[in-house]
Amino acid sequence: MEWINRSKVLIVGLGLMGGSYAKALKRLGYYVSAIDKSSGAVQYALDNSIIDAGSSEPDEALISEADTIIFALYPGIIAEWIRNNQSYFRPGIIITDVTGIKGAVVYDIQEVLRDDVEFIAAHPMAGRELSGVENSDERIFREANYIVVPTDKNSQEAIEWCENLGRLLGFSNVSVLSPDEHDRMIAYVSQLTHCIAVSLMTCHDDEGLADYTGDSFRDLTRIARINENMWTELFFMNKDKLLEEMDAFINEFQFIRYCIENEDSEALKAKMRLSTERRKAFDRNRSKE
Amino acid sequence: MEWINRSKVLIVGLGLMGGSYAKALKRLGYYVSAIDKSSGAVQYALDNSIIDAGSSEPDEALISEADTIIFALYPGIIAEWIRNNQSYFRPGIIITDVTGIKGAVVYDIQEVLRDDVEFIAAHPMAGRELSGVENSDERIFREANYIVVPTDKNSQEAIEWCENLGRLLGFSNVSVLSPDEHDRMIAYVSQLTHCIAVSLMTCHDDEGLADYTGDSFRDLTRIARINENMWTELFFMNKDKLLEEMDAFINEFQFIRYCIENEDSEALKAKMRLSTERRKAFDRNRSKE
Repeated sequence: MEWINRSKVLIVGLGLMGGSYAKALKRLGYYVSAIDKSSGAVQYALDNSIIDAGSSEPDEALISEADTIIFALYPGIIAEWIRNNQSYFRPGIIITDVTGIKGAVVYDIQEVLRDDVEFIAAHPMAGRELSGVENSDERIFREANYIVVPTDKNSQEAIEWCENLGRLLGFSNVSVLSPDEHDRMIAYVSQLTHCIAVSLMTCHDDEGLADYTGDSFRDLTRIARINENMWTELFFMNKDKLLEEMDAFINEFQFIRYCIENEDSEALKAKMRLSTERRKAFDRNRSKE
Repeated sequence: MEWINRSKVLIVGLGLMGGSYAKALKRLGYYVSAIDKSSGAVQYALDNSIIDAGSSEPDEALISEADTIIFALYPGIIAEWIRNNQSYFRPGIIITDVTGIKGAVVYDIQEVLRDDVEFIAAHPMAGRELSGVENSDERIFREANYIVVPTDKNSQEAIEWCENLGRLLGFSNVSVLSPDEHDRMIAYVSQLTHCIAVSLMTCHDDEGLADYTGDSFRDLTRIARINENMWTELFFMNKDKLLEEMDAFINEFQFIRYCIENEDSEALKAKMRLSTERRKAFDRNRSKE
């Protein structure tokens, strides 16, 4: 599929992310269709001109006319959807996804996929604390990272096609990582942070404390509003890497606790200085973008 | 001291918080003086019209003309400063502070203080990831909480005077808590969150990961830029309550870890639902302000 206007993009799964892709691509001039098992989501998207066509069934006509297909489904069901419906795929197309973990899904998909269609994985690192197509918003892609995640099976052409898609959608940063690198990174910067936010929000019973919070508590718990079905699936599918990061965090937190209990101010200040240095470097990196 | 223009406010300690108080009070028309051991800070504040008068010594004239004194020093040195200089205090004045913990400082101060001067404690829950008078900014008080923290020794008049000061400074929320309630709350919503942010920032050695972070990591580590001297002192002075909150958090985090390791999706989703409910209630509370 060339990235020229009126190419036909089919989005499978019309939630927050699928809807945000639809809005971005339709604004760029693409013909956007969608399939979602919820007829309400499809009707909402049609009524609000978020898509040009849609169906709550794997509709043969919609699938066979698509120049590309973007899977915005829960990770566990993509391979099966492909197995059931790939006979309708146009030969030679490139397809992609938006899944938050890669190792547990990419190889399965490439395994079941027809030889004349190429799947290139991608992770748009954007989101909101709300779900559903009615909350979709392409502005979440700005200032955000888009990671292309190829395997040995992918062609250079497909990798470049996918990088270009990320830039078209409006992501400010497009990178390429292997599935293993991606999943290790995501375990630390995303999954671990969500585990921390949930634990912080639920570890204390006095809800009245919210009346007194400063910015720090507000920031650390913003992502404590969480889609429990999606994140539970993502956590389990990346279990080994996530547990490793959780253990590293627990060790570090226990060390800080030890410093406080024993009033070891030198060791505690050294950690705080390291933390401050790293966060400063991080701010510098962001401001370069 | 009446809150009328040209009353004289002396600020002792001219860092980020002292400077922000000075800016807010001077804009309201007060005569603002400051004492700070750094002559550079005092000169900067004079040069930039942040204060009307200043000294790097406990100057008798500045102290004795003050209608109120606001202590913006590190918590451990306030009582001693008062002991050394209270002979200059005008009789009958009310004085206050900005300290982030209360039990370990308030009683000591009230113990050493002259009988004809009243100390009423307050905690402005505002800050920045930068320190020093040159980074002071009264806008940090907007949307923030100001807690008045009286003991049995305080008069109703002083409590109301202090609540009024919080409102004058621009805080959107003014509350009253006992020292014990305050310190328990602050251990959870502020100190624990800072321990978490530092641990998250330092538990992984791959600094290149910062290139891939999404909003969640950025939010959770914003406060990882930390003034190590001030926070170490605050942590140690509230040690028992902070360790209690750290242990509650570790227990909760370990439970989440257990759910992931054993793929107990029901227990994990229940925690996520509780977390989501609480964060929603919290957003509702904030939007009422």
